[in-house]
Parts: sequence; structure tokens; C-alpha cells
Amino acid sequence: MSKCQEIAKRQAGPTAQADAAFGLTASEAAASIARGELTASALAESCIARTLSRDENVRAWTVFDPEMVRKQAAARDAEPAKGALHGVPVGIKDILFTHDLPTTYNSPHFTSHHPKMDAAVVALLRAAGAVIFGKNDTVEFAVNGRRARTRNPHDPSRTPGGSSSGSAAAVADFQVPLSIGTQTGGSVIRPGSYCGVFAMKPTWNVVSTEGMKACAPSIDTIGWYGRSAADIALLCDVFSIEDDGHTLPEALDGARIAICHSPVWDQAEPATRDAMERCTALLKKAGAKIECLELPEPFAGLTGAHKVVMQSEMRSTFLPEFMALGDTLYPELVATMRNEAGYSRADLRRAYNLAAECRARFDELAAPYDGVITPSTAGEAPLGLENTGAATFNRIWTLLHTPCVNVPGFFGPNGMPVGLTVTAPRFADRRVVAVAGLLNTLVSDAAHQS
Amino acid sequence: MSKCQEIAKRQAGPTAQADAAFGLTASEAAASIARGELTASALAESCIARTLSRDENVRAWTVFDPEMVRKQAAARDAEPAKGALHGVPVGIKDILFTHDLPTTYNSPHFTSHHPKMDAAVVALLRAAGAVIFGKNDTVEFAVNGRRARTRNPHDPSRTPGGSSSGSAAAVADFQVPLSIGTQTGGSVIRPGSYCGVFAMKPTWNVVSTEGMKACAPSIDTIGWYGRSAADIALLCDVFSIEDDGHTLPEALDGARIAICHSPVWDQAEPATRDAMERCTALLKKAGAKIECLELPEPFAGLTGAHKVVMQSEMRSTFLPEFMALGDTLYPELVATMRNEAGYSRADLRRAYNLAAECRARFDELAAPYDGVITPSTAGEAPLGLENTGAATFNRIWTLLHTPCVNVPGFFGPNGMPVGLTVTAPRFADRRVVAVAGLLNTLVSDAAHQS
Repeated sequence: MSKCQEIAKRQAGPTAQADAAFGLTASEAAASIARGELTASALAESCIARTLSRDENVRAWTVFDPEMVRKQAAARDAEPAKGALHGVPVGIKDILFTHDLPTTYNSPHFTSHHPKMDAAVVALLRAAGAVIFGKNDTVEFAVNGRRARTRNPHDPSRTPGGSSSGSAAAVADFQVPLSIGTQTGGSVIRPGSYCGVFAMKPTWNVVSTEGMKACAPSIDTIGWYGRSAADIALLCDVFSIEDDGHTLPEALDGARIAICHSPVWDQAEPATRDAMERCTALLKKAGAKIECLELPEPFAGLTGAHKVVMQSEMRSTFLPEFMALGDTLYPELVATMRNEAGYSRADLRRAYNLAAECRARFDELAAPYDGVITPSTAGEAPLGLENTGAATFNRIWTLLHTPCVNVPGFFGPNGMPVGLTVTAPRFADRRVVAVAGLLNTLVSDAAHQS
Repeated sequence: MSKCQEIAKRQAGPTAQADAAFGLTASEAAASIARGELTASALAESCIARTLSRDENVRAWTVFDPEMVRKQAAARDAEPAKGALHGVPVGIKDILFTHDLPTTYNSPHFTSHHPKMDAAVVALLRAAGAVIFGKNDTVEFAVNGRRARTRNPHDPSRTPGGSSSGSAAAVADFQVPLSIGTQTGGSVIRPGSYCGVFAMKPTWNVVSTEGMKACAPSIDTIGWYGRSAADIALLCDVFSIEDDGHTLPEALDGARIAICHSPVWDQAEPATRDAMERCTALLKKAGAKIECLELPEPFAGLTGAHKVVMQSEMRSTFLPEFMALGDTLYPELVATMRNEAGYSRADLRRAYNLAAECRARFDELAAPYDGVITPSTAGEAPLGLENTGAATFNRIWTLLHTPCVNVPGFFGPNGMPVGLTVTAPRFADRRVVAVAGLLNTLVSDAAHQS
């Protein structure tokens, strides 16, 4: 049992199984429902009760309607199992369209915005039998501007990270076993690290972004949160993610693992430095072959290139909003729309070319390894809700399109979670999930032994 | 006056100006409305009458509601000018969402499909004052399966091309001055060539595809049709397309033009070979410096790479439809979803890398030229509506992300239009429009003199 599960069981107290069902992982809940030991309705009631009791502290939702959740759960109970998530509640970041709930982008201009369609991922979740639990709070448009009201479940005085703030917090706080987020900079992995949950950003474009408010389409990526590697893999199944054929590692003993400090290592805080050291030591002890992967010179330009790509593409994707709302949009977005940074089309072409070159090179550099381990964040979640932390350690992987999984299990000097990222060449999605699961087990077991 | 305009004036006969307003280009109509010589309502009535009188022959629309058009036009007449397209009717390909009209994808499974939102381009058109005229027929999902019912306005026994069949035909037939299409293979440029109108596929990702049914997001591109280069440029304004800073050529005398037969030249029919020869001769006579641009060896792999990219990405984008509809989808789509071609993730990675390499190389190769001229189609529009022609000559440019404009003005042995494409490095969008305009004028003038 993970540390988080223990906390949940403790908080839940001695209750009947259905009452404590919110503590189950998605895989456990789905199996329990499939065996007839748990109903979708009982699970929904448990998650609703958990959410209502915790909402004042965590504030993970922009739109939450218990009656709609109950209706979906009752429908699941009344029909044969549809798929791998039959009856399992899932939270949806509020920049993804849902035909039956508004999509507000957490923007004051879109409070009653409601495209009557499901985003591709929402349709796939429904096809798998999931119960759409509500819309998770987000940084405005998943970029900047208004922050989510969400607090970090581990310490309400700290940010859960952004922009997928509510998605990460809702899973970390046991309100739902799974949730969907999106990443254009570091918006899936960062909140995963700060909230201490598994978080996956798959290879770019293997999961359709249709029905997501676009930001920078050449790097926008759908991602998801869960409390176990098995749950992360379950969503890989639901989204039909194929691997590139590399054999999945079954143990860390003999695995070839690269430690990659990345070009932004000088910004790592002690919490992250300690986690990287501890991880390396544990892997060595477990029999993994550890090597250091230094990224060659061109990779140092990726952080700057990411900024050029993101801001340049935003000038196209947010043009309709800018035409309609102009200077009433938040100041940083207006500055981007006015191209105050002065990025030329030649700058964008150079950024695209550098990204393309480094994608091909990283695939080759990382090919020999079962996984590449790199920081998820500079350190623990900052204090306050205004500063959601920086995407410093995520941007280059987002631009490289590589699959990334945040592995929870490390903690900083304030007792807050700090995650590490497992990455690999593009399309090695299943491999990073497998390595992330093995690494989390290794770290959790060590924590219990110490 | 272009040949097309002459035909329209002839067909319209001696009528009052408002009655013949359908024959105006968008630029002419917008200027006339701005001067108070024409109302949006009179223009709408003229286009409605033209459409109703021609619909039996051309069948360019899946959804067309004259009352809704009249309401929009009346609203434009009752308010100050909103933008560059105030009161101008625009057709919208029926895979782009419109909040007030259904979006059927021309699929039997989506006849009442109606997401209540505007695609980004539709929102931008409305912001510019455009009147959304209706939804243009398309090949099913803009890919394959059911064909548009649309006929080529120049010969109803021939295809208008696909997949943006109705968008191209409606403009060519003077039912609307402008329309929007989409291209993933050759779906904007090919119908432009077959129907004898200007067609633009801008640089990938400079126009937001939000609210378009996705097909292959790394190459999906919004495009548009018009009857003059000025109208094409007008939509570049509406979509805020910036060029890369290269000076726009003002004359062909002294311009440096590359003739690129492309790696698929062996599939060019006599009509296209003749057009390329005639174009080259006219350009030389006009004082242009003509060079031959041979694409190096790796470019020969782009056609194959395009297929891998398109089919592999479709397996993600159409997954929700496949989960819901399975084998009731059309057979070619089912085959793609089942990956009957057997493309691996390694194949996709190679295709992405080849495309990226060639993008950078083509930008360098084409940089010295004011424009690169290459075929738009193998030849004239095929007979019948089932065969919408092939994207042979378009795929590599779609994969290269370069801006392309189809230049009308050439004709084949059956008197059908054949177009040529002007392309250039990525982000030289304004430049290709300028060169396309100059070339069309050159060809039209020569036709009048001969």
C-alpha cells in the first residue's frame, strides 16, 4: 500500500467497504465492480461524499453536479460492462469539452460557455464506461491569468501546481481515482510532482486533442493522473496507445537506466537534487546499470525554442478570443497577442528546426536505455496559490514530444512530495509507464524499510 | 475581368447591379458595401438567387438556409461595418463547426450532429463581418467514403475534386465569393485546380484548426477559395497571417522563379505538362529569371511518408468514432483503424524525421526564389463523381508545411481548368499570394491577346 493510500485509509476511518471505496485505485475499483462486489453507484457515492467533505479545503472543481454523477453511475449499474473503466469516476480538466457540462476555461469571459460536444478523450472515457465526475479547475485557458482556486491536498497553504491544478489535486486527495489534464509547458507533470501522484504526458499526438481548447497545437498534449502505475497503464489501454515494440522491462535488476540532469540542472533545488541522488542510489542497489546521459549542446536551446513556439502558436489559436475580447483578456495574454516579445517568423522556423533536430537525436541517444530519469520540478510546491511553480524541467520534454511519467514517492525538506520523470524516445509510452511503476515500488519499499 | 467573371456576367444577363452582385469578387463586394452602393441584404439575395437557380446542377451545399442568410445580412446592414468582410457571404466546409448550423461531415452517421460552437476560422469570419452562407459538401470526414454530391460547374459530368468539393464549386459557380476548405492530402488545391479558382493552403499551423474535425493534426490545414488573388489576400488579413519579411514582388520582370517538376512528375498528364510549359514560356517572355529546381533524393520519400503520417494519426483522431460505430464506418476507414497497412511506430518516427529534415532543406532550397511553381494536379478533372482525382502533386507540399496557392487560368484539351501551384518556404504566405496574382494576370492577359 502506498503512503497516499495509507493516509486515505486513515482519513476514512473504520467504515464499510463501499464508504471507503474512494480510496481504491481505478484498477481496484474496476475489478471490484466487475466481480460484483461494488456497484458504480456505491463508488460514486463514496467519491461524492469524499469530495463534498474535502471541497472547502481542496477546491478541485469548477463544475461538480452530484446528481449528474449519480445518474451516470445508475446507468452503468443498469447495463452490462462497457469497457475497462465501467463505473469508474474520472475528473476532466475544464478546457476539455463535455456535452453535458459547461467548459469555462476558468476564464471570467467563459463562465457559461458550453459547446455541446465531447472532447475525443471524454468520448473514449465514456465508451470505456467511465463516469464523468465533473470539471477540474485550471489556470485560465491552461496558460496564465486567473489561477485555479485549488489548494495542494498535502498543505493547503501551497499550490498544487498548474495548469492542471484541480485534476492533480482531485486524484491526490482521493476524490476521484483518475483525471485528465493537458500539457503545453509543464502542466501535467508539474502538478503531479507537487501533489505526489502518477502523471503521464504521452508522446505528442498519440492521443487526439480534439475538443481541447488549443494553445500551441504542435506541442499541446493530453495527459492523465492516477494513484498507481497500473491506473496510468489502464488509460493507455483506453486511449489505444501502442508502444514501439521494445520489450517492457519486468525488473530493475539489470535494467539500463540513464540519469539525465538536463540543461536546466542549475535550477534544481535541494529537494530535487536529493531525490535524484536517492533514486540513483536505490537503482544501483537494485542492480540497475546506471549511466549519465549528457544532452549535447543544441539541446540547451530548447527552452528558448519552446517559448518561441508556444507564444507564436498562441497568436493563432487565441486570435478569435482576442478579436472578441481584446484588452479585457488578462495582460500576459494580450502581450502575447501583440507579440511584445517580437518573435519573427524566422525565429519560429529556427525553433521548429531545432526541435525537429533534437527529437531525432534524443530518440537515438535514449534508444539504448530502458528509461531516462530526469527531474519533474525544481523542488517542492511553492507557498501560496499565485505562484504555481515553473515548467523549467518540463518544457524541453514537451517540445521533444517524448512520453513522460511523473513517479511519486520522494519527499522534500517540508514533507511535500517531489517527483521524478521517466522519459524515453517518442512512442516508448508503455515502457516509461513500466519503469515508472518499478521505480515507485522500489522507492516505496525503501521508505517502509527505513 | 477574368474569364470566370465574363462567364458570370454573360450568365447573369442584363440585370440591375444588385441582381448581378453575385458576380463580384469579395474585395469588390466589400468595397461596394463600404461605399454604400450595395447592401449586404442585396448581395445576399443575389447569391441566394444564384445558388437556388444553380443548385440542381452544382449541389455545393449540405446545409443551406436562405432565411438564416437573410437574417445575418440584415444584421450587417443594421450595424456599423465590423471588418474587412462586412456583409460578404462565405461558404464553410461541412467539417468545420458552426454554432448555428449542423456539421454533418457528409457522413450518414452524423446527419444531425451539431456542436454548438464556431470553429476558430468561423469566429474570425464573423468578427470580420462575414455572412456565413451555409455548409459546403465534402467527401465523408474529408477523407474517403461517401463522395460529395457536388458536380464540377464547368462540366456536370466531372468531379469538382475532393475533399473540399462544395467549397471550390460554390466559388467557381459564383454562388459565394469566398469559401473555406481544409487540406490533409490535396483537398484544397486539387478542387481549386479542377474548378478553376484561386485556392490557398497556408503554412501549417498559422491558422487555427480548432473546431475542425481532425484527421491528421500534424498536417491538417485550413484553406480557402476566391476568384481573385486580392480575395485570397483579404482572408490572409482576416486570419492575421504574417509573412517572414521577404519583400513582396511587384512584377514578374526580374523576378526569380523556380520551376519544380517534383518527384511525381512522371504522373503528370499532357494538360499539366502543357500548362507548365506555357507558364514557363510566358514567364520568360515577361522577363522573369527562370531556373529549374530539382528536389534532392530524400524528397522522393515524402509521398510514402505522407501516407504513414496520415494513416497513423487517423488511428488516434478517429478512435472515438471507431469505438462508437466500428465496422459500420466506411470500409477504407475501418481498414485504416485496423492498421491493415501495418505501419509501426518506428515507421511513423522515420516519416516524422524525414518530413522535418526535408522541411528545413526545402526552406533553404527555395529561399533564393520569389516563388516555386509546380503542378496542382495531374491534369483536368476526371469524369464522374466517384473518382475525385488524386492528391499526388499535393501531398509532399502538405507534409512540407509550405504555403501553396493554386493559380487558375490554364485549360486542358477538354476545355477544363488546370491549375498550377505557387509555393515557397514556410511562412512566405503573402509572397505566394503576390506571385500567384501576378502569374494569373500574365496568363489571363495572354489568353485575351491570343
